Amino acid sequence: MRALRLADHLTLSVDEPDPVPAADEALIRLRLAGICHTDLELTRGYMGFRGILGHEFVGELVHDAGSLKAGTRIVGEINVACGHCDFCASGVPSQCRDRRTLGIDRYPGVFADYLRLPVRNLYAVPAGVPDEAAVFTEPLAAALQVAERAVIHPSDRVILIGAGKLGLLIAQVLKPYGCDLTVIARQDRPVSLLKKWDIAYLDARAYDPLSLGRASADIVIDSTGNAEGFATALDLVRPRGTIVLKSTYADLPSANLTRVVVDEITVVGSRCGPFASALRLMSAGLVDLESLIDARYSLDNVIDGFAHAARQGVLKVLIAP
Amino acid sequence: MRALRLADHLTLSVDEPDPVPAADEALIRLRLAGICHTDLELTRGYMGFRGILGHEFVGELVHDAGSLKAGTRIVGEINVACGHCDFCASGVPSQCRDRRTLGIDRYPGVFADYLRLPVRNLYAVPAGVPDEAAVFTEPLAAALQVAERAVIHPSDRVILIGAGKLGLLIAQVLKPYGCDLTVIARQDRPVSLLKKWDIAYLDARAYDPLSLGRASADIVIDSTGNAEGFATALDLVRPRGTIVLKSTYADLPSANLTRVVVDEITVVGSRCGPFASALRLMSAGLVDLESLIDARYSLDNVIDGFAHAARQGVLKVLIAP
Repeated sequence: MRALRLADHLTLSVDEPDPVPAADEALIRLRLAGICHTDLELTRGYMGFRGILGHEFVGELVHDAGSLKAGTRIVGEINVACGHCDFCASGVPSQCRDRRTLGIDRYPGVFADYLRLPVRNLYAVPAGVPDEAAVFTEPLAAALQVAERAVIHPSDRVILIGAGKLGLLIAQVLKPYGCDLTVIARQDRPVSLLKKWDIAYLDARAYDPLSLGRASADIVIDSTGNAEGFATALDLVRPRGTIVLKSTYADLPSANLTRVVVDEITVVGSRCGPFASALRLMSAGLVDLESLIDARYSLDNVIDGFAHAARQGVLKVLIAP
Repeated sequence: MRALRLADHLTLSVDEPDPVPAADEALIRLRLAGICHTDLELTRGYMGFRGILGHEFVGELVHDAGSLKAGTRIVGEINVACGHCDFCASGVPSQCRDRRTLGIDRYPGVFADYLRLPVRNLYAVPAGVPDEAAVFTEPLAAALQVAERAVIHPSDRVILIGAGKLGLLIAQVLKPYGCDLTVIARQDRPVSLLKKWDIAYLDARAYDPLSLGRASADIVIDSTGNAEGFATALDLVRPRGTIVLKSTYADLPSANLTRVVVDEITVVGSRCGPFASALRLMSAGLVDLESLIDARYSLDNVIDGFAHAARQGVLKVLIAP
């Protein structure tokens, strides 16, 4: 089969052996995959990953698997848990101490004709949800994890810093909470989408983010992944407020921890989220995902797709077999 | 009256005018005061404070004040709140947006024969509590604030990093919670006190703190106030665990925020705490405070007292009029 391998650089392997599922795993034929910011980071050395890249996908079962029939369209959670540790035992497999991660950490990914995943990781895609939406299940679940980790009240003033692929999903997820939400954006595409969705925004190219009010927000979400984003979050959050960190940082940012102490701020990390909830939102038509798609490449041209996805201001690039 | 003034350096002023209380304030005669780590930081430039230093005290009322009679022994909360802002309105005057702070920020402190404070800040000291305990009310309340900001379960594994004046109070406060508590210490005095109190400790001069187990603690409290303490806390806390920051940092430490995100850690700041609770603990004899006293100076020799308090390994230095 074909597969995108990361070693010293990216290579499209065309004579890759088909995956051989273990007893608890299913064999899956790829239908559509998405390139994530993490994939780009991996190609720059993050996690030291070597192997087949990719973790955002929708596929179909090659054989029956558990209660799911061959041909069923499925999506899959990316954490491959050990099933034995304290976190697995307490129902939090996403934090399994021995987890491998699809296309990120010691587990082959989805930019390939076929992949394998444990059957317990799989979710059937509801009939009304097209592949072009279902392929967003993993990042939409990650967006929902903001509300798993912080309590969002309808009366809260919420500021979201960063309107990239993930930020635009978080904005859509939070809007129905009724909170007073403002998104800080700095690119044309996100600004036009936020306008379309009637979500309030501040264009950071024209206005100082602090014009939103120093120490005024109940909750600030940083989905920028850079040190400046965290510093802005600390300026915007009110005393006793909460900062949700939603992306990984390439370096170790300097943090004004004294402000955290004196103003008794809470900082929470947020990572992978609930797939079933993401599928419910998609099934109910409550999120606009297809507007995020910028381009579609075939697996034969996946390396061109990566180059496209790495361009400034580009949102989602999809890969079809 | 006499008063310790901080300007470019510390001076004992001997012809200071007596304080003139406002309508809602009481005039207080000092009985005993304590030198805090924050006082030492203020003399090094923290907050840019200029004026009479000091915020840990027990005193007595010169006149009747509210329901309290002249001569009553009292302690007082250090945050002088505006009474009007959103935090005052919601019952959190310690986070008042316009607060001044006794001996720390635009409000004259307690190293003086007399001081003034709003009557609403005052608490009568129970009869059985000696001045040498009551003078610890403010730091003991700050220690209790750990449990106001993080839920401490009896089954939690808790690691406290830093066994200085505040750390030793936190250790005593948490022991009765029944949690599996270990204190990381690196000085002889704290080690001997922790032994005396039968609180488990690791001597960081002899053992690597990580021998306690990487990612093993439900809650880690950093009362070191240095960047290394926060880094150790991040190494020791489990996924989905909580780090409580309990002291201010002189610099902006580099923080591994990626670990906060990936392992979904919660970081909470904790500052001033509940005076009534601290007085209850002292009244019930549940904390050993007098063992923390290293020296006692008269107000005439307060500058010698500061020099003593600044020595490595010294715990509490008291100042009597």
